[in-house]
Amino acid sequence: MPGSSFSALILIADGTEEMEFTITYDTFVRAGIACTSAYVAADEGESASPGPIIATGSRGIKFLPDVLFSDINQIHGTAKFDALIIPGGAKGAATISECAGVQALVRDYIDHGKIVGMICAGSLAARTAKLPSQPLTSHPSVKEQLANDFLYSEEPVVVSGKLVTSRGPGTTFPFALTIVSMLLGPDKRKEVAGPMIFPEGTPW
Amino acid sequence: MPGSSFSALILIADGTEEMEFTITYDTFVRAGIACTSAYVAADEGESASPGPIIATGSRGIKFLPDVLFSDINQIHGTAKFDALIIPGGAKGAATISECAGVQALVRDYIDHGKIVGMICAGSLAARTAKLPSQPLTSHPSVKEQLANDFLYSEEPVVVSGKLVTSRGPGTTFPFALTIVSMLLGPDKRKEVAGPMIFPEGTPW
Repeated sequence: MPGSSFSALILIADGTEEMEFTITYDTFVRAGIACTSAYVAADEGESASPGPIIATGSRGIKFLPDVLFSDINQIHGTAKFDALIIPGGAKGAATISECAGVQALVRDYIDHGKIVGMICAGSLAARTAKLPSQPLTSHPSVKEQLANDFLYSEEPVVVSGKLVTSRGPGTTFPFALTIVSMLLGPDKRKEVAGPMIFPEGTPW
Repeated sequence: MPGSSFSALILIADGTEEMEFTITYDTFVRAGIACTSAYVAADEGESASPGPIIATGSRGIKFLPDVLFSDINQIHGTAKFDALIIPGGAKGAATISECAGVQALVRDYIDHGKIVGMICAGSLAARTAKLPSQPLTSHPSVKEQLANDFLYSEEPVVVSGKLVTSRGPGTTFPFALTIVSMLLGPDKRKEVAGPMIFPEGTPW
């Protein structure tokens, strides 16, 4: 299958867990899914500052996101992408999950039968977007904030309709590969995983 | 152990495999190892261009490296860091492994008993730096370029004295955790791996 027409919007903020962001983006690109990273500003005024947008990850790696979330959300609304991804990292996930535009987009994607992936503390967006109670997982550090409102699971990747949740950096490969499989099928998942050279016995 | 005094220099170029770069950097920071990313320019003239240094990874993610390799190599020579890391990605690894300054640094680190980590196509630097024949692995795509000069292994992570080599994105977690253990011991490795939440049965 030479390329697909699928696309994903991957959110990033200051404090985003950079492994969760990078593994998902890179795995999707390997599958032929066109990725756009969108920076969610902690302070709306921040988006008006001059110079390039820079997102500093939870462990200090600096990224240049592709676009500002505020721009892409105004221009494309819900129409453009096939999947919306919210990575973790405590500070980044707080910024993203508390953004009203993100909350509205999460609901719209679910309503339109599109995939929404949340990983680690990113799962907090399921609560802030007021999604209905359903199976979900997250990083253990935010379990208490989710266990009352959702059917909390400790599986590495939890698929509930089009909502896909996962736990942390250590589960990001199976998280991303699960979404590749949902969009493009299990053969594409295998094709993408092969050249990554997972050690024998890796359980995904 | 509140912080360590260890530090690592992690090289990056255009075309570096961004998962290998990010997982190593992030895992090291979680262990308290101070990381500096250094951009190796494909064209020496490139380092003189105005504006921020930007490294575009093999799948299009854009990074702002901490420093230029040409600057840090002139200023610090071999003295400053405890480990030198060369990630893969075909184009990035070609740029890095063909850089004479990198080749000299690899030899100096090995001569001074410091850790040199190479992953994926980054293992080509073992050949360009003319390291002696010893156990080594790499991404399968560059095996033919290494198998004659080294004792080629297909283990996920190969430790040969202070030279640590590995295979691809799928082996980068155990690669980084192996180096954490070499610098800071097995307890630190466990302390770092725990909150990453690897699925049950993960073989590292």
